[in-house]
Amino acid sequence: MPELTVLDHQAVLGAVSTAAAIDAVREAFLHHHSGEWTMPSKVYLLSPPHGDFRAMPALGGGYALLKWVTSFPANLDKGLPTVNGIVCLSDAITGLPLALLDAPAVTALRTGAVAAVASVALAREGASSVGVIGCGLNGSWAARSMAAAGYGPGICFDPRPAAAEALAAELGWSVGTLVGALACDIVCTITPGAQVVVDAGDLRAGQHLNMLGADGSGKAEASLDAVLACELYCDEWEQASHGGELAGVVAAGLVTREQVTPLGAVLAGEHAGRSGPDAITMFDSTGLAIQDLAVSAAAVEAARDGRVQAGTLTL
Amino acid sequence: MPELTVLDHQAVLGAVSTAAAIDAVREAFLHHHSGEWTMPSKVYLLSPPHGDFRAMPALGGGYALLKWVTSFPANLDKGLPTVNGIVCLSDAITGLPLALLDAPAVTALRTGAVAAVASVALAREGASSVGVIGCGLNGSWAARSMAAAGYGPGICFDPRPAAAEALAAELGWSVGTLVGALACDIVCTITPGAQVVVDAGDLRAGQHLNMLGADGSGKAEASLDAVLACELYCDEWEQASHGGELAGVVAAGLVTREQVTPLGAVLAGEHAGRSGPDAITMFDSTGLAIQDLAVSAAAVEAARDGRVQAGTLTL
Repeated sequence: MPELTVLDHQAVLGAVSTAAAIDAVREAFLHHHSGEWTMPSKVYLLSPPHGDFRAMPALGGGYALLKWVTSFPANLDKGLPTVNGIVCLSDAITGLPLALLDAPAVTALRTGAVAAVASVALAREGASSVGVIGCGLNGSWAARSMAAAGYGPGICFDPRPAAAEALAAELGWSVGTLVGALACDIVCTITPGAQVVVDAGDLRAGQHLNMLGADGSGKAEASLDAVLACELYCDEWEQASHGGELAGVVAAGLVTREQVTPLGAVLAGEHAGRSGPDAITMFDSTGLAIQDLAVSAAAVEAARDGRVQAGTLTL
Repeated sequence: MPELTVLDHQAVLGAVSTAAAIDAVREAFLHHHSGEWTMPSKVYLLSPPHGDFRAMPALGGGYALLKWVTSFPANLDKGLPTVNGIVCLSDAITGLPLALLDAPAVTALRTGAVAAVASVALAREGASSVGVIGCGLNGSWAARSMAAAGYGPGICFDPRPAAAEALAAELGWSVGTLVGALACDIVCTITPGAQVVVDAGDLRAGQHLNMLGADGSGKAEASLDAVLACELYCDEWEQASHGGELAGVVAAGLVTREQVTPLGAVLAGEHAGRSGPDAITMFDSTGLAIQDLAVSAAAVEAARDGRVQAGTLTL
């Protein structure tokens, strides 16, 4: 009957600062790139027409992680969150479950963090303004992470004005139009992925784009032409080529694996990143279980050290 | 911040009787066979040399299930259970997590139940004696399920005499040798799968065997010759041919898919089952997420109806 540490939504967000999440996620990419951390492909369980569930396992740092998380876009109309679920962190040596965490909070922290990690690695020197397209939970954490990494001020755009206003007010940024957000040095898109928000004509020389929203079959935030106009980077080829921003161009035979660089290779110094100040770089984030592992481990260690109040559960 | 129902080990075992588990598991096989319930392949996360984790999703009956469960055979030497983990049951329409359950208890109930379901479908008329080889948690529930289905008395064998004695005393069965257990009308093997316990010379005309232990790469409880001497049935071809008792003969090219009948086809009346009273039938159980779903849903509904005391957890 193991006793598990429980970190609810607020406890997760209180346990790991944006700066700590950025460090943890960067390290996770390096551990995964070196082969030290492992991660089978995530598994989708479809629940049509409502949405899908994903089971995401990863191993590293003495832990095994499973995130059981949803994407139910139609929930927005019901006043329910799109993303729901739990994270279970287990001991990699005994297999015993150690902790349960709120999955939406872990997801928000690690999705936000990777935007900062990718921007530091790929944006041109001197890039500062940030366009945030989509100001829901994950978009808000992307903005907070970008601010924590020294970027900004930014322009917040969301079809729901209140969401954009709240985020802009919190960070001292401004509310703007889609066109305004797309004109920034760094663009972070984090929409449900149901319609394209970036076309080739929107791109500007020297821009960096973090495409954070499309994470499943049939979703895309950029047009094929926009993707083809960029130097391409991804979090992980298998996921990105099947269920990410790259899926369209790969399916059309326009882009092959050799044309896309994994972020880990740039962080490890094996790839130089952008070819020059005028290049347009696009990072396709589909969300990796190793990111969840890094953030969850940091949260559980914060609870263990008494830096955040956690609950317990006995099974 | 969803509130989840929590069913710990004892609550799960108290919520679902062996008879109810048998009914639920039989229905689950029929729903899966008809395509109404769905189940992607389980995903293994290896944690060498200690063991492995499995993420097992399934959808049906208005629920989505994820079982995150381990097989760590070396835990026995540490005084820790081989099987650990949690089950999360979610709402298939909103994606919201509804309940957390102790995975070892769910696993024991559904593994035991399928032994009874397969025996009723496949054993010869008049079969009564039961040999139980391996009297750990899952072997004990297999014996209890067989007794609940009207089989017995049986012979309990385990290299740990105390385990066999406790089970035999509980059911009014007897303790015996491996040879004695193998001589019964129905043989249930539920060992760690590290060594063969059934060879071709052990088989008797008219026997039925439930092979419940081997559920991962490299594990087997029967020799290739023993498997080849039997009419073959499995829970699910993909799992059984890759990580079950059938893996060896399939890898050797000795058995193809056409020679193995899924249990669901027998239950649905599409296949007649054993060819005659003297045939030897072997059911290869690798353990399906739909079985976990059936038992977990029954447990959660028992808690909802106040038939068992459950806890709550807010994330």
